[in-house]
Amino acid sequence: MSLITVGSVAFDAIETPFGKTDKIIGGAGTYIALSSSYFAKEQKLVSVVGDDFPSATLEDLKARGIDIEGIQIKKGEKTFFWSGKYHNDMNTRDTLVTELNVLGEFDPVIPASYQGAEFLMLGNLAPSVQKQVIERLDKRPKLIAMDTMNFWMDIAWDDLMETIKMVDVLIINDEEARQLSKEYSLAVAAKKIMAMGPRYVIIKKGEHGALLFNNDNNVFFAPALPLESVFDPTGAGDTFAGGFIGYLAKTNDITFENMKRAVITGSAMASFCVEKFGTERIENLSENDINKRIMEFVNLAQFEIEINN
Amino acid sequence: MSLITVGSVAFDAIETPFGKTDKIIGGAGTYIALSSSYFAKEQKLVSVVGDDFPSATLEDLKARGIDIEGIQIKKGEKTFFWSGKYHNDMNTRDTLVTELNVLGEFDPVIPASYQGAEFLMLGNLAPSVQKQVIERLDKRPKLIAMDTMNFWMDIAWDDLMETIKMVDVLIINDEEARQLSKEYSLAVAAKKIMAMGPRYVIIKKGEHGALLFNNDNNVFFAPALPLESVFDPTGAGDTFAGGFIGYLAKTNDITFENMKRAVITGSAMASFCVEKFGTERIENLSENDINKRIMEFVNLAQFEIEINN
Repeated sequence: MSLITVGSVAFDAIETPFGKTDKIIGGAGTYIALSSSYFAKEQKLVSVVGDDFPSATLEDLKARGIDIEGIQIKKGEKTFFWSGKYHNDMNTRDTLVTELNVLGEFDPVIPASYQGAEFLMLGNLAPSVQKQVIERLDKRPKLIAMDTMNFWMDIAWDDLMETIKMVDVLIINDEEARQLSKEYSLAVAAKKIMAMGPRYVIIKKGEHGALLFNNDNNVFFAPALPLESVFDPTGAGDTFAGGFIGYLAKTNDITFENMKRAVITGSAMASFCVEKFGTERIENLSENDINKRIMEFVNLAQFEIEINN
Repeated sequence: MSLITVGSVAFDAIETPFGKTDKIIGGAGTYIALSSSYFAKEQKLVSVVGDDFPSATLEDLKARGIDIEGIQIKKGEKTFFWSGKYHNDMNTRDTLVTELNVLGEFDPVIPASYQGAEFLMLGNLAPSVQKQVIERLDKRPKLIAMDTMNFWMDIAWDDLMETIKMVDVLIINDEEARQLSKEYSLAVAAKKIMAMGPRYVIIKKGEHGALLFNNDNNVFFAPALPLESVFDPTGAGDTFAGGFIGYLAKTNDITFENMKRAVITGSAMASFCVEKFGTERIENLSENDINKRIMEFVNLAQFEIEINN
C-alpha cells in the first residue's frame, strides 16, 4: 500500500561521548523514509529543503524507491539545521543550535500523484503544518500516525489538540506522554490521550522499550534490545516510527495483532539506528540483517507458560 | 522440591503519597516466603526476631506451610525495624529509621530437618551471613539464588565478592548492577557480573521490567505490567524473588526456558505486591488471581511474527 511521510529533511551536527560529526544528513522525514523504505513499496515524501541541500542525497532517496516529488527545494534559502550534544548516559542531550530556515515557513505541497495514499505518517513538525497535510488530502487515509514533541505542547497547545483529534495513532515518548496527559502512570496517560482522539497510543521508553495501547483496553509491550553500546541515539524514534508505519503499509493490516508486529519491527529498526552516527547504519541494511534482528526480539520476549491448577 | 529462604523477618513503617502505616510486618524473608509459598510446597525459613515479634504472625506463616523452625526468637531483644518514605514518583525513597536490633548479630541456624534442600534463596543480608548459610549446609543445593544491595558494595566489598562467587543466580536492580560492575550498559554489566561467578543474572528494572541473562549469551526480557497506580513498592523486589525461586522449586527445572517462566511468575507476584501496603495483598491471593495475572503478562508480551523474504 502507498505511504506518505511528512517530515523534515535536514542537516544535523552531533556530538556524543564517542565522537563528533560535521554537518550530516538528518531530519525526521529522512529517518522515517529510510526506515520504512525497507518495507513499504510505494513511499512518498513531503518536505522542504534549501538549495544548499545535496542533490545526490535526494537522488539516493529516489534510488531507494522513495518518491521525492513532494520535496520542495527553496532557491536561495537554507535547509533546517540542528546541532546537539549527548551527555555521558546518552539519555539526555543539549540542543546547541536550531536554525529553522526553510522549515520556518513550510507550506506543504501534496503532488497529485500522492493522492489516494492509504497510510500517512506525520513526522514531528508544527501541529498546524501536520493538520494542513491532512486537510490537503482528497481522501482520508486508512491510517494516520503522528509524532510530536514537548516543544509543541509548550507553544502550540490548541493546534496540537486539533491535530491529535484527527489522527489514529499517536507516537510519543514517556516524558511527552506525561506532559500531554498530566499523568505520571503511563497506563493512565495512554487512556487520557486516547480520549483526545487517537484510537492507538505508542509510548516509546528508549532503552526500556515501547508500549502500544488501543482504546479497547489492549496493551502490548515491546522490549528494547539490551545493547552493549549506543553510539548515537539521534533519529532512533523516527526510525522506530518508520519501521512501524512501513510494516503496516506493507502488510495493509491494522488489527491489534499486526500492530504488535509493526511495533517489534520499529524497535528492531531503531536498534540498528543507534549503532552508528546519523543515518549511516539504516542506509545499509540487508534483508538478512533485519530478519536476524527481528529474531533477536522474538528470542528476547517469547516464553511459553502453562497456567497450572 | 524443598526450598530454604534466608532473610529478615521484621517491622516496617511506610509512608507513601497515599498514606502512612504504623509498624507493620515486613522484611525480605517474609516477602520471599509469602510469595514463594504459592508455589513451593516444602518451604523452610531461616531468620531471627526479637520477643516483641507477634507469635500470631509466625503461626500464620506456619499455617501457610512455611517451616519456621529456623526462625530464632531472641529473648529480651528487639526485631529489626525499618522505616521509609517514598517520594511522589514512587521510584525513590528516603530511609527514615534503620534499627538493626537482632539482625546486628545474626548467626543463622540451619535446623537438621532443613538439610538436603534443593533450592536456596539468600535474601538481602550481610554477605558474610549469606556465606555462612551456604557453608552450614551439608550438601550444596541444586540452585542458589542471592539478592544484595548497594549498601554491601559500599561497606563489605570483599565479603560480597566471596559470596557472589558461590551462587548460581544473582538478583539485583539496575542501579546495583551498574555499581557492582562499574558499567552503564546492563548487557555489559551482566557479563561482568557473571564473570564474578553466577551463571545467571537477573536485573530488575522496577516499572521497566526485568532482564534475565545466562553465561551462554541468552537473554530474556520480562515486562512489568503498566499499572494505573502503585500504592506501596515496599517488598516488590523480594516478592519477585519469591515468585521466581518458588516457581523453580515447584517445577524442579532450571533450564533457561523454565527460568523465563520463573521470571514471569516473579513479575506477576511483584505486580500484586505494590497494590496494597506491606504484605497485605500477597497474603490474600487465590490461584485464580495468580493465573489471571500471569495471563495478563502473556497478553502483554506475546506476538507472532513471520520472517518474510
